[in-house]
Amino acid sequence: MIRLSLDSLVRIFDTTLRDGEQTPGVSITPTQKLDIAIKLDEIGVDVIEAGFPVVSEGEITGIKNIVKQNLRADICALARTVKSDLDAAIDCGVSYVHTFIATSEIHMTYKLKMSKEQVLEKAIWAVQYAKDHGMRVEFSAEDATRSDRQFLLKVLKGVSDAHVDRIDLPDTVGYATPSYIQTLVKEVIAATNVPVSVHCHDDFGLAVANSISGILAGASCAHVTINGLGERAGNASLEELVMALQCLYGKKHNIKTELLFEVSKYVSNTMGVIVQPNKAIIGENAFGHESGIHTHGVINNPMTYEPISPELVGRRRWLQAGKHAGAHGIRAMLLEFGIEPTDEQLHKIVEKQKNIADTGNSITTSELLSIAGEVLNSNKFEEKFKLHDFHIVTGMKMIPTAVVRLNTHGKNFIASEIGVGPVDAALKAIQKIATEVANIRIREYRLDSITGGSDALAEVSVKVEDLDGNVISAKKSGEDVVVASVQALMDAINKTMLKKLLDSKHRQL
Amino acid sequence: MIRLSLDSLVRIFDTTLRDGEQTPGVSITPTQKLDIAIKLDEIGVDVIEAGFPVVSEGEITGIKNIVKQNLRADICALARTVKSDLDAAIDCGVSYVHTFIATSEIHMTYKLKMSKEQVLEKAIWAVQYAKDHGMRVEFSAEDATRSDRQFLLKVLKGVSDAHVDRIDLPDTVGYATPSYIQTLVKEVIAATNVPVSVHCHDDFGLAVANSISGILAGASCAHVTINGLGERAGNASLEELVMALQCLYGKKHNIKTELLFEVSKYVSNTMGVIVQPNKAIIGENAFGHESGIHTHGVINNPMTYEPISPELVGRRRWLQAGKHAGAHGIRAMLLEFGIEPTDEQLHKIVEKQKNIADTGNSITTSELLSIAGEVLNSNKFEEKFKLHDFHIVTGMKMIPTAVVRLNTHGKNFIASEIGVGPVDAALKAIQKIATEVANIRIREYRLDSITGGSDALAEVSVKVEDLDGNVISAKKSGEDVVVASVQALMDAINKTMLKKLLDSKHRQL
Repeated sequence: MIRLSLDSLVRIFDTTLRDGEQTPGVSITPTQKLDIAIKLDEIGVDVIEAGFPVVSEGEITGIKNIVKQNLRADICALARTVKSDLDAAIDCGVSYVHTFIATSEIHMTYKLKMSKEQVLEKAIWAVQYAKDHGMRVEFSAEDATRSDRQFLLKVLKGVSDAHVDRIDLPDTVGYATPSYIQTLVKEVIAATNVPVSVHCHDDFGLAVANSISGILAGASCAHVTINGLGERAGNASLEELVMALQCLYGKKHNIKTELLFEVSKYVSNTMGVIVQPNKAIIGENAFGHESGIHTHGVINNPMTYEPISPELVGRRRWLQAGKHAGAHGIRAMLLEFGIEPTDEQLHKIVEKQKNIADTGNSITTSELLSIAGEVLNSNKFEEKFKLHDFHIVTGMKMIPTAVVRLNTHGKNFIASEIGVGPVDAALKAIQKIATEVANIRIREYRLDSITGGSDALAEVSVKVEDLDGNVISAKKSGEDVVVASVQALMDAINKTMLKKLLDSKHRQL
Repeated sequence: MIRLSLDSLVRIFDTTLRDGEQTPGVSITPTQKLDIAIKLDEIGVDVIEAGFPVVSEGEITGIKNIVKQNLRADICALARTVKSDLDAAIDCGVSYVHTFIATSEIHMTYKLKMSKEQVLEKAIWAVQYAKDHGMRVEFSAEDATRSDRQFLLKVLKGVSDAHVDRIDLPDTVGYATPSYIQTLVKEVIAATNVPVSVHCHDDFGLAVANSISGILAGASCAHVTINGLGERAGNASLEELVMALQCLYGKKHNIKTELLFEVSKYVSNTMGVIVQPNKAIIGENAFGHESGIHTHGVINNPMTYEPISPELVGRRRWLQAGKHAGAHGIRAMLLEFGIEPTDEQLHKIVEKQKNIADTGNSITTSELLSIAGEVLNSNKFEEKFKLHDFHIVTGMKMIPTAVVRLNTHGKNFIASEIGVGPVDAALKAIQKIATEVANIRIREYRLDSITGGSDALAEVSVKVEDLDGNVISAKKSGEDVVVASVQALMDAINKTMLKKLLDSKHRQL
């Protein structure tokens, strides 16, 4: 049994597949569960809480499949302090059980309808039962942060005497403050001499700060989830906690930080829960810059406006044209395409794109290039692929079908395709031509959420890839999601063609 | 001049319209800026930072319009420590200027290319210039948390001697820790005796914790944004900070918390930046429950699994069927429709819906009702509106047109409509019939973001409203956004019809 190891690595207990999957409305298949577990293992989490077996048959299958995979990470299953739950966990083949019972007055009275004595007895019994079955056991006193301190310590001393391997202190409704967690962790360690974990929820936006406070107070492990998924506002985000511990506190851990972005995207796609653009570390904007002052700073030295290098978390920085963009940022963006305007031309380009932005529109790179072409009086930045028209028929008991007409290199091309829906059909038809003519394929399609009405603005972004592996993206917004999708794809294709042309000119110089 | 007032209210300085609008890719029109300012005033922020006038003509128009509105909140404009910026701010008609210059080595060397002496001189000059023009002045030492402490204090003493009204300490790249902010704020207050604000960024997920730490150390004001918008990972979220200060620290403020959700949605829709479901206070899931243990607890006493009552922030709790749902939650959801299964029937219903969820699908209320109808061997939960079929033609240079065929009350109805896109056309055609037959209208349409490919799952939710003001929503996911949208609307209409029927039966008893 591990007792207060002096190991300086912070242990990362990932509960994306348990607390994270309890996100309301999220359900994944056993196969998806396994795929996520493999990703979690790759990124280096120390423990994977694989699920709560008693929940459903699918959950049991999912956990069993993960155990069979023989991953490097410890695989853990959740169980209440009742025999059927513990047996279900043991039957899954795990060697590590996380068992819990609530110790707060409100939970004991209204949910458990049990006395303190009954709760104490159950907790000790469950730890003993699991230990007797050869399990390593982590015990959580649910709602620890709202529990009477004396009773909590009594329960934790009880399970400690029953040889529990680890104690977890859940801040079940995210009600704790950093200073409260600090005293709680210190008292529990002093009273039990057992390694302590913290499990913090984000109901007031304090999950990461509370987890850090617990670790600084002596906890050796934090329960976290990818993207901060979990009940209600979710749990502490793995990516935020790990980067804060590493960069702000010099703490060590086993996470391969350069995989953070990839794993975040994988979990977001698989579980179907979006990450907002302004989310630390993994949000789309975390390394994006628009304001003139910021882009100017970043061009001179990225550390002026970035706390860490984006590559550290598997990302790249990007600049955005727009109302706040200044001459330095726009010059840098144009330079990427080999365009070097004079100061006077640059000034005109900046003003023109600000005027568009003042009308509430965002500016795509293609639009910026087209403005530059206008100001520089050059047609070399013109669209290479011109959309002539397209039409679509779709409905119920019909296969969505699109026909597109494009013009490129002076020739007309017509293609038709079917798809799972009208957008898919239209994009596939365009891709058919783009692949044939220029070896360009769609790599990613993304539609930002629409709120308000069915006539609200939709924002689409499309990434395309050419044969050389260049990936270029374009965004477009509009009221018609099909038209916006088609325009975004056309924009991305044209940017790719233009980049290719300009690159080849560069090479000739 | 206000000096260290003993006012116990924490002052809320909202910069949604300045730092928030600097979110990469976000541009709003002057009219939208005014609309948001009015909302901010209604919710009770003390200061509205309306913008950065020198950025664009539209920005200036937007700020002037806000000033003319004569709001209760102070209106502030941002300016670098240069004459043109300060003049632009003064010309907007504000009486409050927020001026800034960076004091960190990295910013002075790489961005400003200025010596310490030049920075000190500029800072003092700008404060004097603005004061001479009758302005109240807040001075920010940009990148304060990465600045040499002695130099920072020298600059802040300098501006204090120039009669600055307020000093702001920006954690420009979100690099500070709560304990760092604490010592910084204490030192600055001791050295200057001027009221202090904190301006924290969320690059490591610590913006709220750092802001709280600053306030506990004596800062009287925090700069925040709605939804935590802002450069990169954004600023401290107004809603998280205010609720944490109130609920965890017993601090007072002027914010009308019951408007938080409404204002959050308004800003998200207007600026086009989504809020993730697992965002504290304002995220869709912040008061949603699926897991059996949680729904059981919440039904007995909401405080078991909710830190605050959702009504406090203008929201309602909701329960979700699914793999983790237990008998208590499902019983409560069915009871809402007047359905009271026996224990055995309930058990069957729970199992059936778990089996569906194990295949990775989320369960709508209609589906749950249909499962209940099956188990109870009753046809009274059947769909009242049956979709026979629909078809759509759309494209470029075409007006999207939909034709739908529905059957209700044994009659067939056909309707066609045009729309801004295929989804809009289809929904309007169905609404035409639903309004005519049952006085049901679409109130809100929402499409969650799609990531991955154009054939990835889209999740649609539709809210409808009947004549009595009942609002009922339904969700549906599918690969075809048009089909999923149509199904979600049909589901919402059927739920409304069913509720009406069951309500009237209830009343007859």
